[in-house]
Amino acid sequence: MVASGFRAVERCDILGVAPFSDGPDFLFRPYLGPGHVAAIRQVADWMHEAGMTTRIDAAGNLVGRYEGHVDKALIIASHIDSVRDGGKYDGPLGVMLGIECVAALHDGGRRLPFAIEVYAFGDEEGSRFPAAMLTSRAVAGQIEPSALEVTDREGVTLMEALIALDLPFANFLGARRDPSNLIGYLEAHIEQGPVLEAEGLALGVVTAIAAQLRFEVTMTGVAGHAGTNSMALRKDALTAAAEAILAIERIARAGPDDLVATVGRMVVGPGAPNVVPGRVTFSIDIRSGAESVRDACAAEVRRTLTEIAAGRGIGLDIHLVHDLPASPCDSGFMALLSEAVEAGGQPARQIVSGAGHDAMVFTGITPTAMLFIRCKDGISHNPLESVEASDADAALTAMRLFIDKLEAKYV
Amino acid sequence: MVASGFRAVERCDILGVAPFSDGPDFLFRPYLGPGHVAAIRQVADWMHEAGMTTRIDAAGNLVGRYEGHVDKALIIASHIDSVRDGGKYDGPLGVMLGIECVAALHDGGRRLPFAIEVYAFGDEEGSRFPAAMLTSRAVAGQIEPSALEVTDREGVTLMEALIALDLPFANFLGARRDPSNLIGYLEAHIEQGPVLEAEGLALGVVTAIAAQLRFEVTMTGVAGHAGTNSMALRKDALTAAAEAILAIERIARAGPDDLVATVGRMVVGPGAPNVVPGRVTFSIDIRSGAESVRDACAAEVRRTLTEIAAGRGIGLDIHLVHDLPASPCDSGFMALLSEAVEAGGQPARQIVSGAGHDAMVFTGITPTAMLFIRCKDGISHNPLESVEASDADAALTAMRLFIDKLEAKYV
Repeated sequence: MVASGFRAVERCDILGVAPFSDGPDFLFRPYLGPGHVAAIRQVADWMHEAGMTTRIDAAGNLVGRYEGHVDKALIIASHIDSVRDGGKYDGPLGVMLGIECVAALHDGGRRLPFAIEVYAFGDEEGSRFPAAMLTSRAVAGQIEPSALEVTDREGVTLMEALIALDLPFANFLGARRDPSNLIGYLEAHIEQGPVLEAEGLALGVVTAIAAQLRFEVTMTGVAGHAGTNSMALRKDALTAAAEAILAIERIARAGPDDLVATVGRMVVGPGAPNVVPGRVTFSIDIRSGAESVRDACAAEVRRTLTEIAAGRGIGLDIHLVHDLPASPCDSGFMALLSEAVEAGGQPARQIVSGAGHDAMVFTGITPTAMLFIRCKDGISHNPLESVEASDADAALTAMRLFIDKLEAKYV
Repeated sequence: MVASGFRAVERCDILGVAPFSDGPDFLFRPYLGPGHVAAIRQVADWMHEAGMTTRIDAAGNLVGRYEGHVDKALIIASHIDSVRDGGKYDGPLGVMLGIECVAALHDGGRRLPFAIEVYAFGDEEGSRFPAAMLTSRAVAGQIEPSALEVTDREGVTLMEALIALDLPFANFLGARRDPSNLIGYLEAHIEQGPVLEAEGLALGVVTAIAAQLRFEVTMTGVAGHAGTNSMALRKDALTAAAEAILAIERIARAGPDDLVATVGRMVVGPGAPNVVPGRVTFSIDIRSGAESVRDACAAEVRRTLTEIAAGRGIGLDIHLVHDLPASPCDSGFMALLSEAVEAGGQPARQIVSGAGHDAMVFTGITPTAMLFIRCKDGISHNPLESVEASDADAALTAMRLFIDKLEAKYV
């Protein structure tokens, strides 16, 4: 069978059910669980068929290698773990498309000046351990040993979990690749957002993984009886928070397209229907491809919330929870990928990735490019996740043309 | 010692700790718990000192009786149960002031044309069983037998709990008083709100216990990744709910002083910082002394929420949870109480009770009046609940003058 995006999608569908899922009637493939181990075996078979040798690295990543004229390798990668009750394409589609790229070379008997290594990362989602991208960070050498001291919800440590693959914990960081031995990093992934679909585009060329700020906000008023506290005398923490939420929305809407601000978690206390809320805590998540845009938004949010709280006589605490810098893709690789997308007959829509991806840990160590594939209704982390096989095929075309263009630079 | 509001407050303080509380270091006196049983014994002693005979009725209410020239009785009452971690005056102060009224008559050797019965109701708060005013409703004959089929959090049924007072469950409804044997009902209670304090007034004459509507609202948008869903393409259920909450506040503020509308409970789903909320549920509690005002507010809230949801493409469900009619106090009794308050040197500020009280179950069967006493910062259901002894004394003066005026009508 000839290499195709259609086959890549079919293989994601195969991986979406038992024995490749730990969920009885939903997809859940956490790192080092039985579904993950079964998936490694299946994907390794497909790698062999595509002409690759395979190994499992020290972090539990499956690595297929297609030799080139030199030892240096282009990594094509994504992850094969999933969130609980997740979708079939978030991660695996990028791995399957990597295999299809190699299958096409193998079918044509082609050898490149560089090797291709397809990585199927074991942990991106962090759906088992309270950490994310454990295994790609190990490969990129972007992880502290202390980050490995994690325990899952059943009390199983990472050390114990690695037994599923007979891997010694002490070697984990040995999964690191020397950047001098890498040509670069390419990842295809579903967009997980609605932008490409809204614009009628199959593909997007990622310019950066967004910079992110996360805040935890507490607004403190005075709890009181809902019947006896007249409107004029209330210090209602929830109406103050409502004003804050609308201000955050307004500020983000006024910014550039890639600026997003979200209040996703909110707890109202005491939380009884007959009590005026005295305390509300909520999260704010702000992202943009540019740190300057993100920071300007955060400053205006902070200023506006301060005004709202003062105007209502409400206490305000804004606590920075985390601050992730932007991970910009490599301009040369981006240009090459854009040319490849256009050569494949698609517009090369530049897009910021609001979500984190394995690619972000490689941007600092090797030229990195990322290709987004349209998905239905922007839905991801959900069994309704859906991708058109023809879009996956367009992605495969662009990836193959990208490899051709990269080859041309090395000849 | 001469009858006084100061002593009434001191006695509330005595009842605020062990053995009259089931909480180790906070006040919790649920119906038929050890603290309640101990409080009944103590309050009965005080009733005896004030010249009353006492009995425990079939619902576990302590009843002190001071005979008059005829059998008919004026009930002076409130409750002696408390919420968990509650305040010392919510309920007991009204009972203690009733005892002081009788003590003053007894000290003066006075007999009235009617008897006085001081009721210390066992359950007003519903802090043990999922019901409220079980025992005053029994006295007023305003309860269905099915309402007695309740079980507390430990699985103890009302039938089993009544053993604490050796009361047979089958007799519970026998606590009912024949209205033809009643002169009327008078209750003093802390305001549990900030209105009197804000106006510098010690006392308020309640015109009605507010009519109430409770709704449960669900707004349904589309959950999505907080990083990948651009602002323009979101269907955020929480920003829609925030707009709703501010509209509800605006509508209630535009109404008369006794109109209040509260969103006290709110649950945001899925509720993760990195997920755009797809579903928000929240309560709306609307109260006013007049059903027409309350209903007009509810209609405008419903209309406005419908507009907000339509404007944002958000699903909306508004479900009526309960509908309590207003309980208006008796105009003759109110006039008498107002005269008494003014004769005691206080302005007779008319006020709607936004909270429910035992008094409300009597408004339909006998002339009912209710006197509010200022409390600090409007705080109640909280250990910080506080009342000035001088305000309690002003209340006692008004209650004694009310009794005098009532006597004058019966001579």
